[in-house]
Amino acid sequence: MTPREVIQKKRDGAALTQEEIAFFIRGYMSSQVADYHVSAWLMAVYLNGMTMQETLALTREMRDSGRVLDLSSIPGKKVDKHSTGGIGDKTSLVVAPIAAACGVTVPMITGRALGHTGGTLDKLESIPGFNPKPSAERVVEILKSSGAVIIGQTDDLAPADRRIYALRDVTATVESIPLITASILSKKLAAGIDGLVMDVKTGSGAFMPTLKMANALSRSLVDVCRAMKTRIVVLITGMHQPLGRAIGNALEVRECIDFLQGRTPEDLETVSIALAAHMIRLSGRTRSVEQASKLAYEAVSRGEAAKRFRAIIRAQGGDERVVENPDLLPKAAHVEGFRARVAGFVTRCDAKLLGLASNALGAGRNRVDDVIDPAVGLYMERKLGDRVSRGDVLCQIHWNDKKRLGDALALIEQAFEIKARPVRNRPVIHAVLEG
Amino acid sequence: MTPREVIQKKRDGAALTQEEIAFFIRGYMSSQVADYHVSAWLMAVYLNGMTMQETLALTREMRDSGRVLDLSSIPGKKVDKHSTGGIGDKTSLVVAPIAAACGVTVPMITGRALGHTGGTLDKLESIPGFNPKPSAERVVEILKSSGAVIIGQTDDLAPADRRIYALRDVTATVESIPLITASILSKKLAAGIDGLVMDVKTGSGAFMPTLKMANALSRSLVDVCRAMKTRIVVLITGMHQPLGRAIGNALEVRECIDFLQGRTPEDLETVSIALAAHMIRLSGRTRSVEQASKLAYEAVSRGEAAKRFRAIIRAQGGDERVVENPDLLPKAAHVEGFRARVAGFVTRCDAKLLGLASNALGAGRNRVDDVIDPAVGLYMERKLGDRVSRGDVLCQIHWNDKKRLGDALALIEQAFEIKARPVRNRPVIHAVLEG
Repeated sequence: MTPREVIQKKRDGAALTQEEIAFFIRGYMSSQVADYHVSAWLMAVYLNGMTMQETLALTREMRDSGRVLDLSSIPGKKVDKHSTGGIGDKTSLVVAPIAAACGVTVPMITGRALGHTGGTLDKLESIPGFNPKPSAERVVEILKSSGAVIIGQTDDLAPADRRIYALRDVTATVESIPLITASILSKKLAAGIDGLVMDVKTGSGAFMPTLKMANALSRSLVDVCRAMKTRIVVLITGMHQPLGRAIGNALEVRECIDFLQGRTPEDLETVSIALAAHMIRLSGRTRSVEQASKLAYEAVSRGEAAKRFRAIIRAQGGDERVVENPDLLPKAAHVEGFRARVAGFVTRCDAKLLGLASNALGAGRNRVDDVIDPAVGLYMERKLGDRVSRGDVLCQIHWNDKKRLGDALALIEQAFEIKARPVRNRPVIHAVLEG
Repeated sequence: MTPREVIQKKRDGAALTQEEIAFFIRGYMSSQVADYHVSAWLMAVYLNGMTMQETLALTREMRDSGRVLDLSSIPGKKVDKHSTGGIGDKTSLVVAPIAAACGVTVPMITGRALGHTGGTLDKLESIPGFNPKPSAERVVEILKSSGAVIIGQTDDLAPADRRIYALRDVTATVESIPLITASILSKKLAAGIDGLVMDVKTGSGAFMPTLKMANALSRSLVDVCRAMKTRIVVLITGMHQPLGRAIGNALEVRECIDFLQGRTPEDLETVSIALAAHMIRLSGRTRSVEQASKLAYEAVSRGEAAKRFRAIIRAQGGDERVVENPDLLPKAAHVEGFRARVAGFVTRCDAKLLGLASNALGAGRNRVDDVIDPAVGLYMERKLGDRVSRGDVLCQIHWNDKKRLGDALALIEQAFEIKARPVRNRPVIHAVLEG
């Protein structure tokens, strides 16, 4: 078998065998297969697709390219939550403490911002002292004591995914359903979880802009998890406008604290409670999602989730006082309102453009080595369907750098549209699939 | 503009602009664009194709990636002949001296064996002393004195093609019509020719196995040459069985000498005279192909082509005595007949399998650094349609290594089929296109 033969077979639209996929991925890790082989193969996969059996074999090979964690020393079911990424998507920060407060063990492995979407790790790092990379032993201790830990991807989990992802990023082969499936699940399955709740975003600010693609990805995730005997629930949720109101690292942490303290932005609550409820049910704590939702709501209203969030922050070295006093989070030097020029209803509040605007202010990264400004970002005062008068503030811009403000303003300008009649609002949760 | 954007556009099936192609190819040559970018892009081109304008832009960029020869100091039209490669395809060796004998200047740049097809350079190197790489000044001298020179690709002509071809070879992106077109024409146009006669092979032993693909490649070659204002004639010729009777380096040189001395294997003559005739007409020596054919036949029958072949060999340092005495060529230690087990008609004499068998004996290369045995190969005693009795020799096997003989025999076994009724013979020249 040669790398060329494997590429050729995929090029010609045939399904690769498990042996061929193993040869290719193991060969890549042992340098028998080169970057240029893999990138040609990735393009062939992008354009010709993969069967479920191929996606499954790829997921397995990528999972087994590194260490597979054994969390069996920790009692109870380990359930993680993962999102395909969106604008203002801070659900991880509230879902982990809520689920933990309801008795679920949450070993959450999460990522950094790249492109127009934010990263959970960057958000947490706006909390002074927060350590996203505790040692493996410390992770187990934190899980036992706090019930949840939120850490960055480690080098020894699914290293094949890291190398392949880097190539996909530069060769325009990211948006492929089998490749996304294998990338997400190889990492999650290497983390030794029993169940996974996936939030697949759809809409302008999402990775999968159409509902059709979101559905196909969800189906693929469910099929592979089923074959791997790992419980999964997929929620397809809307990302045409930002989730919640804050975009930007410290601003999003503050919004999460507000939520956990009972000050609730509507759609953030809907999505977060649904995700947490499915985690709780997957863990076996309840039999129905309804019961689980009730537990999740109670964890928030009784302050247990907030307490758990404090515990997680403390356990990971962060300044837990931010939960009582969010003013300890970094703050931008300037806050400026972006105002409506006409009266009417908000008919566009475009997630992607607002994400790019927040990035333009310094909240995100265009390149891996860009430095993030934790304080800057946007806060939506108005969202889709809201009635506005002329001069009303549509969003607050938290900024530090005058030049960057100009770039952001141009994007925000395009992001909003106000018309005389409101548009019909879409539900935030589009579908739920289960494997 | 980034490499990723260019890849993405081609991935999505859009046509690249001349600027985008220039950015990509120049970037590759200046190391701004990496191998892994190019291989993903090649696969996207392979699967999504290119418009004529894109193929033209790619050809131009690849031509201009190195030196473009100026042969204007040599009087008359410079015409080259190029083949997509086949089994027993030794036409270059006879076409160059015939055309030169008829007054055409032939600056022939040719290649080496790789895969199942042979290489003109390897064949010529079986002539003791033959130098395939004379200096640039010497090439001009030889062209002036002998009218033809047959040399290897030099490093400074279309270097982008050499780098891209190496990648195509290992990433299964060779058989793409726009990529083949640009590869062939960039090199030919860099050699400063006025006209080109292309031999596009079709059939089991050819690069383009179907007539449909051969037609599409021919059309593409004609269209690009027309836009580049270079005269071209394309002959689509059959490669279901070997051309002529010999396969293997010294054996093919010997067959060429036989042909130039008037001992004529039928299909080799048909194809060689047609190619030479089109070269003669493109050079302006005659107005019709019929007149040109007559000149070509006369050049052979009067011994002028053989004389010219001697001149070329002498000019390039080879032992010209081989033309009078082919026994000076390398000879295999053993010759063994492969015999018919039943009586009937030859209904299969498969070019590809016989090419692979010759390779198995040591006549070709599987890897670039394999060493060729010039003496070994096959000689067809029977070809398609021939009647055979049980025990007749179908082909002579010229071999040096017992172990390799076994591998070759297994392939030859499959290559021949003998049935009670003959199959209808196909014409060797399928079509002629002109630009």
